[in-house]
Amino acid sequence: MHARIYVTLKKGVHDPQGEAVRHGLAGMGYKEVLDVRVGKMIEVKLGEISREEAEKRLAEMSEKLLANTVIESYRIELL
Amino acid sequence: MHARIYVTLKKGVHDPQGEAVRHGLAGMGYKEVLDVRVGKMIEVKLGEISREEAEKRLAEMSEKLLANTVIESYRIELL
Repeated sequence: MHARIYVTLKKGVHDPQGEAVRHGLAGMGYKEVLDVRVGKMIEVKLGEISREEAEKRLAEMSEKLLANTVIESYRIELL
Repeated sequence: MHARIYVTLKKGVHDPQGEAVRHGLAGMGYKEVLDVRVGKMIEVKLGEISREEAEKRLAEMSEKLLANTVIESYRIELL
């Protein structure tokens, strides 16, 4: 089974990487870009596991290792 | 308009960050995790622009700045 976990900064948390990208794009003439936020997409390949168990275990992994839940949110997508 | 650009390493390109995550998860008991790849998700807020123009401009931005197309692929999603 394959899954994707999207990790994004929570609203209101400053994103210096996104700001640097926005600034770079503005300097290249892409003035239509109003805001940029950079997050992570983590693609996971899992061995034999049920969808229910996969969702539960991936949420655990996200809480413990993949996301810093003080400042980041995560969303799990099973493929 | 909002858009997301997903930037991932091409097949066959070594992903040390993904390997570190897989190794960390294995050490925590998540032996079902066979492989991990880490990519970027870039969320972009655009001003007044048509969907056609947005797709064209975002592809340009991806080629020029957001992705290193030698080793990375990108996918654009208009929301």
